[in-house]
Amino acid sequence: MHLNIILLEASLELVPKEIVNHPAVIKNAKRRNKKPEDTLLDISLHYHAMKYLENSHKRGRPDILHQALLVILTDPVIKGDIFIHTIQSKIIKVNPNMRPPKNYLRFIGLMEQLLKYGKIPINGDETLMEVTNLTLDNIVNRYDLILLSEKGEKINPEEICKLDEKWLLGIGAFPHGDFSDKILNLAKKIYSISGFPLETQQVLCRIFSACNSILGWP
Amino acid sequence: MHLNIILLEASLELVPKEIVNHPAVIKNAKRRNKKPEDTLLDISLHYHAMKYLENSHKRGRPDILHQALLVILTDPVIKGDIFIHTIQSKIIKVNPNMRPPKNYLRFIGLMEQLLKYGKIPINGDETLMEVTNLTLDNIVNRYDLILLSEKGEKINPEEICKLDEKWLLGIGAFPHGDFSDKILNLAKKIYSISGFPLETQQVLCRIFSACNSILGWP
Repeated sequence: MHLNIILLEASLELVPKEIVNHPAVIKNAKRRNKKPEDTLLDISLHYHAMKYLENSHKRGRPDILHQALLVILTDPVIKGDIFIHTIQSKIIKVNPNMRPPKNYLRFIGLMEQLLKYGKIPINGDETLMEVTNLTLDNIVNRYDLILLSEKGEKINPEEICKLDEKWLLGIGAFPHGDFSDKILNLAKKIYSISGFPLETQQVLCRIFSACNSILGWP
Repeated sequence: MHLNIILLEASLELVPKEIVNHPAVIKNAKRRNKKPEDTLLDISLHYHAMKYLENSHKRGRPDILHQALLVILTDPVIKGDIFIHTIQSKIIKVNPNMRPPKNYLRFIGLMEQLLKYGKIPINGDETLMEVTNLTLDNIVNRYDLILLSEKGEKINPEEICKLDEKWLLGIGAFPHGDFSDKILNLAKKIYSISGFPLETQQVLCRIFSACNSILGWP
């Protein structure tokens, strides 16, 4: 079964210039022998530093992306094109063969490498993740975008599994709030798969399980 | 829907005495201003230190428990009794109201507190996790134990959701290998829910989604 996914407004970025000299940022970078600007923004380390950043309620949660990639990339059967659209509008292409590190600290190190050098591994024949120069509009022109949102029309997740390859399933990968107006306007359809607000990992868990149930739980 | 779960041989322990003086253990503890014996065993930090530990292929992966608890404790509808049986045979009772920290480093800190002081929070009216003086035999005398294992009889996960409250669903929370003989002998039934070897988080994701599908995806 083929399922194209884009994780939208993913809470993944290096520490922005505005706070690169904040004591909490410097302290964490020093502890890890890194330059502050080479470290990921993480609210559990940079809570006070982030308070006055624009859109801060959607930023500093790389753990959300980590868990989402673990669900998507460990499924033995369901494959498709995978993109990440970051909160800073970078578009990252993910190789479906990638196995993300289970350990969060290793994942953080890998994402710092990706955002600094543009791809991982830095040198190696098979690229696993790459920051492209695509825009969200470029991507959405290639597929028809479906969004999953609490405000969408309620459907069963099994319906999502029946989409053909021209569809791209957009799932938020940010902690709080809703999609930006720009993204809402790009969507051909907006659906909801629960009466409850679900976290990114729960949404993916339901979708992948529903698709596996259609396939007879391989 | 009620579902009792025990996470078995969970890869959760403080650094054992045998390696408490290993350079890697001391280095990590120092960086976190902790005594070595108060830090969790973690293969991503202690790989070389762990090599000669007994059963090392099943140890040093607290991330597995973290992700399992995130799936179990964030489901809005499916509740039940939750136990953790650790690789050192401690039995931990988990309060279904607990919301585990999403951030892995915070989770690690909490588990270190739990294993050192016996419960979390250390002082507070509602205990969220507690190391009991129960044994696995005590637990298994109260319920009928079903194990999920690759070697079990293949069934659809929906069947698991129909169990009544006398059943206890046992899921491994260790990285490699199979259940110990002791645990295999305690099981009333052994089932498999996939043709593939699944990780703890994937097993839980399938079970909780199957149960939610029976309930009409609330």
